[in-house]
Amino acid sequence: MVALCLPSLHLFFYPSSSFRSSFYSPYKTPISLPKLCASLIAREEVPEAEEPPLPSSLRGVDRKPSSIPEGAVTPLSVDFNAWYLDVIAKAELADYGPVRGTMVIRPYGYAIWEAIQEYLNAKFKETGHSNMYFPQFIPYSFIEKEASHVEGFSPELAVVTIGGGKELEEKLVVRPTSETIVNHMFTQWIQSYRDLPIMINQWANVTRWEMRTKPFIRTLEFLWQEGHTAHATAEEAEKEALQMIDVYKKFAYEQAAIPVIAGRKSKAETFAGASCTYTIEAMMGDRKALQAGTSHNLGQNFSRAFETQFTDENGERQHVWQTSWAISTRFVGGIIMTHGDDTGLMLPPRLAPIQVVIVPIWKKGNERIGVLSTAASVEQILKSAEIKVKIDNSEQRTPGWKFNFWEMKGVPVRIEIGPRDVANGSVVVSRRDVPGKLGKDLGISMEPSVLIAHVKSTLEDVQASLLRRATLFRDRNIVDVSSYEELKEAISQGKWARGPWSASDVEEQKVKEETGATIRCFPFDQPEGSKVCFMTGNPAEQVAIFARSY
Amino acid sequence: MVALCLPSLHLFFYPSSSFRSSFYSPYKTPISLPKLCASLIAREEVPEAEEPPLPSSLRGVDRKPSSIPEGAVTPLSVDFNAWYLDVIAKAELADYGPVRGTMVIRPYGYAIWEAIQEYLNAKFKETGHSNMYFPQFIPYSFIEKEASHVEGFSPELAVVTIGGGKELEEKLVVRPTSETIVNHMFTQWIQSYRDLPIMINQWANVTRWEMRTKPFIRTLEFLWQEGHTAHATAEEAEKEALQMIDVYKKFAYEQAAIPVIAGRKSKAETFAGASCTYTIEAMMGDRKALQAGTSHNLGQNFSRAFETQFTDENGERQHVWQTSWAISTRFVGGIIMTHGDDTGLMLPPRLAPIQVVIVPIWKKGNERIGVLSTAASVEQILKSAEIKVKIDNSEQRTPGWKFNFWEMKGVPVRIEIGPRDVANGSVVVSRRDVPGKLGKDLGISMEPSVLIAHVKSTLEDVQASLLRRATLFRDRNIVDVSSYEELKEAISQGKWARGPWSASDVEEQKVKEETGATIRCFPFDQPEGSKVCFMTGNPAEQVAIFARSY
Repeated sequence: MVALCLPSLHLFFYPSSSFRSSFYSPYKTPISLPKLCASLIAREEVPEAEEPPLPSSLRGVDRKPSSIPEGAVTPLSVDFNAWYLDVIAKAELADYGPVRGTMVIRPYGYAIWEAIQEYLNAKFKETGHSNMYFPQFIPYSFIEKEASHVEGFSPELAVVTIGGGKELEEKLVVRPTSETIVNHMFTQWIQSYRDLPIMINQWANVTRWEMRTKPFIRTLEFLWQEGHTAHATAEEAEKEALQMIDVYKKFAYEQAAIPVIAGRKSKAETFAGASCTYTIEAMMGDRKALQAGTSHNLGQNFSRAFETQFTDENGERQHVWQTSWAISTRFVGGIIMTHGDDTGLMLPPRLAPIQVVIVPIWKKGNERIGVLSTAASVEQILKSAEIKVKIDNSEQRTPGWKFNFWEMKGVPVRIEIGPRDVANGSVVVSRRDVPGKLGKDLGISMEPSVLIAHVKSTLEDVQASLLRRATLFRDRNIVDVSSYEELKEAISQGKWARGPWSASDVEEQKVKEETGATIRCFPFDQPEGSKVCFMTGNPAEQVAIFARSY
Repeated sequence: MVALCLPSLHLFFYPSSSFRSSFYSPYKTPISLPKLCASLIAREEVPEAEEPPLPSSLRGVDRKPSSIPEGAVTPLSVDFNAWYLDVIAKAELADYGPVRGTMVIRPYGYAIWEAIQEYLNAKFKETGHSNMYFPQFIPYSFIEKEASHVEGFSPELAVVTIGGGKELEEKLVVRPTSETIVNHMFTQWIQSYRDLPIMINQWANVTRWEMRTKPFIRTLEFLWQEGHTAHATAEEAEKEALQMIDVYKKFAYEQAAIPVIAGRKSKAETFAGASCTYTIEAMMGDRKALQAGTSHNLGQNFSRAFETQFTDENGERQHVWQTSWAISTRFVGGIIMTHGDDTGLMLPPRLAPIQVVIVPIWKKGNERIGVLSTAASVEQILKSAEIKVKIDNSEQRTPGWKFNFWEMKGVPVRIEIGPRDVANGSVVVSRRDVPGKLGKDLGISMEPSVLIAHVKSTLEDVQASLLRRATLFRDRNIVDVSSYEELKEAISQGKWARGPWSASDVEEQKVKEETGATIRCFPFDQPEGSKVCFMTGNPAEQVAIFARSY
């Protein structure tokens, strides 16, 4: 069994043994291979040949070192950061803009964002929210109205001082977030309890003058959605904030195959201006945490600062209770860093811009027409089933180059069609997440209902497998700690530490300074039983998760 | 026959005879009533009663003057500009932002924009374009590279001079349009002819420091899409520019029911930096022209300024040929000003956020439950057919108030359900575009297939009727002129003037100064035969359309 998971045939075609040597990445820590293999081969109980024969479709395919695309990325296991930047560049996800810290989102990266938008936009509407649009220029004075908000955001502002050739009387902030302008407008739209709740969302660009930037993860300008709601009661606002973090969590699990941990932020990590911040935290392939989405219960902080009031059923004036919640293009970075491996990107099928790539393979000139026309008809069959399919019939590149290229681009499923496949009326279907022979299904009939069913179930398998792997990886890298020493040990190993916590903000700051780790959240899922704070020895109500983060 | 079109029963419930007195607006000029009536009543050849009885569903409906909603708008026929601003405010399409000239697009207005986006986005993809995203901050030096571009845009720029608390070394322009930054990136992505064409689009906000602003029509910040393409040949670029203006034209006709005139701009009106600008020009209800979408053949102007080059098949370096094309939230203003009438908004069904509003009507308490549950089931029937339906079952408002409110909001079809309708298993279906009895179909069965078919065909009828009316209005207000005197006469009457033109830029400027009219376009559709320039008496190749415009 173990042999099955050793560097496969596939690997011999790569120039160095380190390249692709850990194809179970993002699992940088040693993982028992037999254990993983068992789950991988469960789907195909074929006894293994000593020397697996080349699949028919690979005959004539040149995967020798000379065919390694110029697009090959630095292996993730060698240098995670270099790998990330390579993937972004070579998979053509994004590029640097001319202004420091800005990013151009290229079509392939933007299509992932569009898939995220499509899903979330529908969920927001289902849960009663309407889209709208607020101007991005905010009078400077607005930002100063809510004390902790200005403290949090003023170092990061981009400021317009000239308009139409003239110095402006009041400087304008390019929105870093919209709570202030939203409240300014809410005061005009809300008179009575009958005007509540207001539940809106906008898809927009925001600007934060970040010093250390990284494509998708932290850029000077980014795209996001920001939901804003106003309610008559504290309970309704709390319910809404929790509802939206749950929408994000389900999205992460079901669409992005990212097993985020949902919970509440510590006071120190709460959004500038919120009473309480809920978060989903994702573990990246280098085991750093990524805050992947947040939902804030704003209480009455902004409504008091802006006098956003309503007349209640008893005729009394009250301040509204508010929430805001956001997910941004940062999430695309989270997908890359959760699922990628040494070869490059690995996209969850439900968000993949291309779910299936078809690579036609021919050697002799007289094979060409048959292979290409068969490939075109397979493409049509899959399109008819609303599968996102692309056929790569360029003649400048070899099939081997194409295999590598589309694997690097993270396309979940590849279909290979060679002359023998044409003769047999069948195709070879390969999964991106399982390299080599194990990931190949040979002789899948081209009969539309058979082919469509097989491809759909393979896509679902890949989707489920990505979530399973990421969950396994996450759980192997969270350590339960009962002392500060154990926490330091876990963090120094690059892992997440989970332990009971009831210590002060000062002690939280001390952990950050000494270990680089912050409280990511108090998870909603809490262990049973009484708890003792690992820092102070006092009783603790909840465990917290500590980790280094992006 | 004429009597049918005199102020209907409907009108007697309004406080002044001027209100709703010209329900065929936007046709401010006298229109032969019999002619219009003939087309209106063609769909229902019911002989008219002397005193039309109240439809069953109107029994108990209070439409007395006292129930006129506080939301009633200034009649369009009294003051077009006041009407426009009233409609924007009272139909809750938009609101003023805190910074002068900015606009908050409210959910009802934004939903129209979303419908525009949904249609165009699909068309852009069908025609081979991919979405992506460029940063909005552009180094000031970029804007200065293309001579006519900087001349056109520099007076309108918003400039960021402070970032992260510090004065910036190079000032940043908030994009007024993206040709410069697009070319900067294209130089990095284009090496050889194999990299061409590049065909991309972005949905984004743009900023132009306008002095005279008007919601939707001209705001400091607005939303748009901007397509950008690069090609290997001049012919391809020209074909693309023409293709995209045709996409816009079809959209205007088929979705927005706006009979735009497509054509080429004069040199004076060409986009700053383009070789040639194509446009679609729409006639508003006050007969001013609105430039509703443009497509530019940029030639090599930007590629020469930015050195955007490729190696052609012969190994020679060449500058790429480019296009750009855009439609913005201004189009929403165009829809309002094309179809609206004294009562308010009138939305084309294909772009209406709410296509059908259901107003349940009851008087006695024991009627309430039956009417509401029937209304809910009618709502479900229509939803199942993907009709955008809203049920207004609020108890604070009378049915009469609701009728007026949803008419003002421009909902194309209203369904009324009263106790007698419940008993009969039928509903009353009213069209927004035909007031009074003429626009009502009584006794439409609630049987799902019957109801759905009836509502769908009514929506299609309204869609077609809006286009027919607007076309009639447009054609009645374009005057063919053969002398400058005739042009001045036509323009002074508020009409468009069409005549052969081969005069100079100086003479074009003179027309503008003396009449306020500009050349809107040289229409693609040209009359046959030889032409003589109405200004110079010289031979002319084409007729031009002159009009005052927004």
